[in-house]
Parts: sequence; structure tokens; C-alpha cells
Amino acid sequence: MSRVYNFSAGPAVLPEEVLKEAAAEMLDYNGTGMSVMEMSHRSKAYQAIIDEAEKDLRDLMNIPDNYKVLFLQGGASLQFAAVPLNLKKNGKAAYIITGQWAKKAAQEADKYMEVQRVASSADKTFSYIPDCSDLPIDDDVDYVYICENNTIYGTKYHTLPNTKGHELVADVSSCFLSEPVDVTKYGVIYGGVQKNIGPAGVVIVIVREDLIPETVDDTVPTMLQWKIQADNGSMYNTPPCYGIYICGLVFKWVKSMGGLEAMKAHNEKKAAILYDFLDQSKMFRGTVEKKDRSLMNVPFVTGNDELDAKFVKEATAAGFVNLKGHRSVGGMRASIYNAMPIEGVEKLVEFMKAFEEANS
Amino acid sequence: MSRVYNFSAGPAVLPEEVLKEAAAEMLDYNGTGMSVMEMSHRSKAYQAIIDEAEKDLRDLMNIPDNYKVLFLQGGASLQFAAVPLNLKKNGKAAYIITGQWAKKAAQEADKYMEVQRVASSADKTFSYIPDCSDLPIDDDVDYVYICENNTIYGTKYHTLPNTKGHELVADVSSCFLSEPVDVTKYGVIYGGVQKNIGPAGVVIVIVREDLIPETVDDTVPTMLQWKIQADNGSMYNTPPCYGIYICGLVFKWVKSMGGLEAMKAHNEKKAAILYDFLDQSKMFRGTVEKKDRSLMNVPFVTGNDELDAKFVKEATAAGFVNLKGHRSVGGMRASIYNAMPIEGVEKLVEFMKAFEEANS
Repeated sequence: MSRVYNFSAGPAVLPEEVLKEAAAEMLDYNGTGMSVMEMSHRSKAYQAIIDEAEKDLRDLMNIPDNYKVLFLQGGASLQFAAVPLNLKKNGKAAYIITGQWAKKAAQEADKYMEVQRVASSADKTFSYIPDCSDLPIDDDVDYVYICENNTIYGTKYHTLPNTKGHELVADVSSCFLSEPVDVTKYGVIYGGVQKNIGPAGVVIVIVREDLIPETVDDTVPTMLQWKIQADNGSMYNTPPCYGIYICGLVFKWVKSMGGLEAMKAHNEKKAAILYDFLDQSKMFRGTVEKKDRSLMNVPFVTGNDELDAKFVKEATAAGFVNLKGHRSVGGMRASIYNAMPIEGVEKLVEFMKAFEEANS
Repeated sequence: MSRVYNFSAGPAVLPEEVLKEAAAEMLDYNGTGMSVMEMSHRSKAYQAIIDEAEKDLRDLMNIPDNYKVLFLQGGASLQFAAVPLNLKKNGKAAYIITGQWAKKAAQEADKYMEVQRVASSADKTFSYIPDCSDLPIDDDVDYVYICENNTIYGTKYHTLPNTKGHELVADVSSCFLSEPVDVTKYGVIYGGVQKNIGPAGVVIVIVREDLIPETVDDTVPTMLQWKIQADNGSMYNTPPCYGIYICGLVFKWVKSMGGLEAMKAHNEKKAAILYDFLDQSKMFRGTVEKKDRSLMNVPFVTGNDELDAKFVKEATAAGFVNLKGHRSVGGMRASIYNAMPIEGVEKLVEFMKAFEEANS
């Protein structure tokens, strides 16, 4: 068996230790005589799995007791509807548009709210994060919405917006657990797990209790009601049990690596190797304003489409896979999530250097 | 490693061959150098997996070309809302109430439709299927809804209702792939996979194309719109990739077992072993009208709660697990899905005989 270096933007690389553990206990989890896939979600064995996953996530992110942690289905895309449907009071919200996913979230919210698009970086293909220190946010908005790390464009908010006292809602799908986070600064933090935490099919919603409404509009599907999900411990219906179990294994792996401080150092080291090379290369260059660069997604180009294609092809053949940029921006993108080892980035840079020499 | 006989109602036993294959290719699927969990859903390798899963399901169920097959998230419970939201034309629907899941589906539909509850077996704790040969179905209903196999109560429709020309919508979560089915008799067949097909977190919707509306009400969340999901090949957002892959392995296993005719024979043989014993036992008895018995879920009681509890406890210790009946009906329930081997049922009956002798 030969593992590749997988730079996919998501679903993405997972820790090899986690995959080995999952494989080893596939037919018999912890002496139960069955796979986690075969386990009743109402069993003690499964309850212990989901409880421990929640506890480990709370430990890692230092989540206060007055926040609920929900493990749900439908991805961030279903939460694009759930966020306005649950948070709607005055019926107005402010969205900051820093890429396709913020845009889609705002479009979904348009169905239910008056959406104010208070800032955007669309003018430069979302290659930066707008100044959010003094945005024209109305006094009566129910929340301010951001996509904190923009997978496609490779930007991240390094300073959270000044929400002028309103609740901050953040989609953190592509920076989940990549560095320490002050949960108290947010009303809602949520994200699909398929980038930095686990297999596609689980979305984690961390929401302050007082923001969970007792009632919602009559037409809101039951599965989208945070209160129903919270009151039922994420088991109103059968949850995505196996995915949650893998998330739990990843939480333990992150703990074993030293937690989020250590993860940040690990991620900064990897990102520096790649960005430093890009900044001195005569062939490759990063596409994002330096101050807004993501630690997780690193887009770059040669400036020549044919050369980009040649690079992606040769890199793939050499075992560096999924480096092609998103179809909306072209070029290349290296997603270097938590589970990407430093040697993966080092070897990629070696390969890029050799490619640059051979093609200059 | 010692595997138990797992009679869970769902999530439930999966074929051991499938689990072994999944474990073997956990770190390297088919020479890709990565797990299916780590694979971009936009990759050729993953597209091949979902395409093959769909093809195998179409082969197994003989699904006509004018039906779409969708692999979605949120379980049957999210489809409880999607069904009325997509099928609503006149705004009226007929529901037949044969248990908790039909009831919940009708309650969800109440939000969006005028729901006529045209028959019910609530009067006898859902221990039978009502006569559905001549129901008071209004001419202008958009569809007639059933839960075809009732997991909790152990009943199944052996004759489909006379819908008087209206579309039939069936939740088949607990009888999916258990026997041949004439798809053309249905407008929509759907079900969560976590009982007979795969891990929780995937719901399969098989819907005739002309029933997929071009537009729906403005307030319907995008993820619930069958047209969006169909137009995007179940990949409007990241699908539950790994779950779909396991479903695909199970489809291949069912094919290797001889398809749905063979599966029916296998299931009838298992059910007969258990029902024949129940019918002659002086201690145990089945709780369902014989004509309506399910091949998948077999509830039974001793008539004595303490004896029931003793039986469940001793059975568990002997490696026959998850035999406790649903909390709403008590007693015992043996779910004997496709993946339950005949010897599992034979050994259970041996154990029941010995228990009966020892406790008479």
C-alpha cells in the first residue's frame, strides 16, 4: 500500500492513525462484537461514543457550558437555511461576502430574511478580506454572518468583524480545529466536518443556548429546528453514527498532538514553508493578499494556464494529488489541513522547486 | 474477535464480507492511495463509486429509466417534510397510519398540506395492516402515503393499498431490498439505509421524474428540493460519501447472493424458522396478525414482563443482542434483516427453546 499526499480541499486527508484504528475495529468495536456502523444509536455503547466525542470537542475548543454542541446532517448547506430560520426575530441580518459559500448562505437567507450585504471582496475575485472595523450594520439585525475561512480563495479572517454588538455567526468548515478559538466571541459556530475533522455527512453546530428559540415558524421542517435537535441530544432521528465516531477519533488525535495551540504551531509551520517558497519563486505566486492568507488553503498560479496544467499533471504522477484549483479560479490550490504532515508540504515544495528549475 | 448475533432494529447488522472489504481498503481504496473518506466528491474515483452504486441499485430493483435515484442526507425524517413540499399541488394528501413513523410523517405533512388520515391501526397498537381495498380517498389528493414495513410493530403491507389512481409514496426504510419490488407501482419509494443497506446518514429517494416539480414554494430550503438534488446528481453539496460507498458494497453483496428473489427466499426461510417456533411455543407468542407479519422485524412476548426481562438478559449474555422490544410496545423484537445469517435465527430459536424448557 502506498499513500499519496492528498491536498484535496474536502473531503480531505485524515490522520493515518485514525484510519488504522477505524480499520482495526471495523468488525468488533471495543469488544461489542459489532461494527460501530451496526450499533443501535440508542445503545449504551453508542451513547458513550457520542458523549465522548462531544466532551473531547468541548475540551479542545474550551466550549462554555452555555453553548450546545449539535452533530447534524445535511452539511453547512442545510444550515444556510437553519441559521436564519432559527435566529429570525426582527427578520434582518448582515452578511459579509468573502466567497462562494458566504454568497450561497446569503442567497438562502434571502428566502427568510431581509439580508444586508454589508461588505464584499467580489471586486478582486475574493482575494482578500474586507476591512470589517466599521461596517454599515443596522441596529436591528438579528446577526452578522461570516464564512471565516474561504476554501476556494484561500483567505481567512485574522481579525473578527466588529459586529457592533450583534451576534456573530461563523461557518468554520475549512478552519475547524486548526487553531485556538474564543467561542464566547460567537453566537453560532458551525461547519461541515469533511475538511478538517472527519468524513462528509456530519455538520457540527455550536450555538449559545439563549439563541436557540423555543418556537419557530410553523413551516420550518422539524429536522432544522435547533431546539428539537438540542433537546434530543442530536438524536431526534438516527444520527450519522459512523461519521460522528470518526470525528471522535480525530478529536482524540488532535488532543494527542497537543490540542489547538500545538495544531496552530503545526499549521503555521506548514503554511510558512509553502508561502515562503511562493514569495521567493520566480514561477509560482500566491493569489491572496498576504495579511489575509489562510493557514489551510493555499492557492497559487504560474500565470500560464498551460504551465499550470503541466504542473498539476506531473505533481499527480509524483504522488501529490488534488492540487488543481477550484474551477471558478483556476490555477492550483494546496489544502494543508491538520492531518497533512509537514513532510507532505516539504516534499511538495521540493517538487515545485524542481519543476521551476526544469521549466524555466 | 467474536462477532455477536445482532438483532438491532437499526442501525443494524451488515454483511461481514462488506465490513472486511471496507476495513481492507480503509487506507488505500483501489490503488488511489487514500481512503474513500478522504476522497474529493468531485474526483473521478468517487464519481465512479456513486455511479456504480446507483447502477447496481437500479439493476437490483429493476428501476425504470424514468425514475431518479437520489442519495441524500437527513434520514427519512427530513423526507417527511420533503415529500409534501415537493409533491404539493392541490395541497391535500392521504396518509395511512400503521405506526409511529407513518404518524410522524403525517404530522410533518400537517405543516404544509391538508392531511387526510384515511385509515389507522392505532386501535390495536398497530398490530395489523388495515384493509386498504376501498379507502375514503378524496379525488384531489396529491398522493397516498404509507410506511410499508413497520419496524416497531412488525407489520408489513403484503398488498399495496388501492390508491384509486393516485400516486403512492412509500417509506421502505425497514424492508428496502428485502424482496423484489415493482417500482412502477410507486410514485416515490424512499428510505433510510441504516436498517438493510448501510450506515446511518444516507437516505435513498427513488422518484418518478414527472413528479419532481420544476419549482416549489419560495420558502423551501434548497437542500429539500428534489429537482436541485436530481439536477446535481445528488451532489448539490458534499454527499455522505463514505456511507454511499458502503451502500454500494452492500448492493454488490446482494447481487452476489442472487439478487432480490434470492434475498426474499433467504428472508422467508429465516422468518419461517422464527414464526413457526412462536406459533407452537407455549411460552412465547408473536404479537402481529399472521397475515400482516413482517419478514424483517419479529416482535414477540411471553406475556410476563419479568420473564421478558430475564429472557433479554440471558439472551444478551449468550451473544444474541438487541432483542429488547421498542419502549412503546415492550417485550422482544428480533430484527432479521438481509445480513442476518440463517444460523443466527436457528441458534436464537434453539436458545428460546432451551429458555422455555428451563423456565416452564
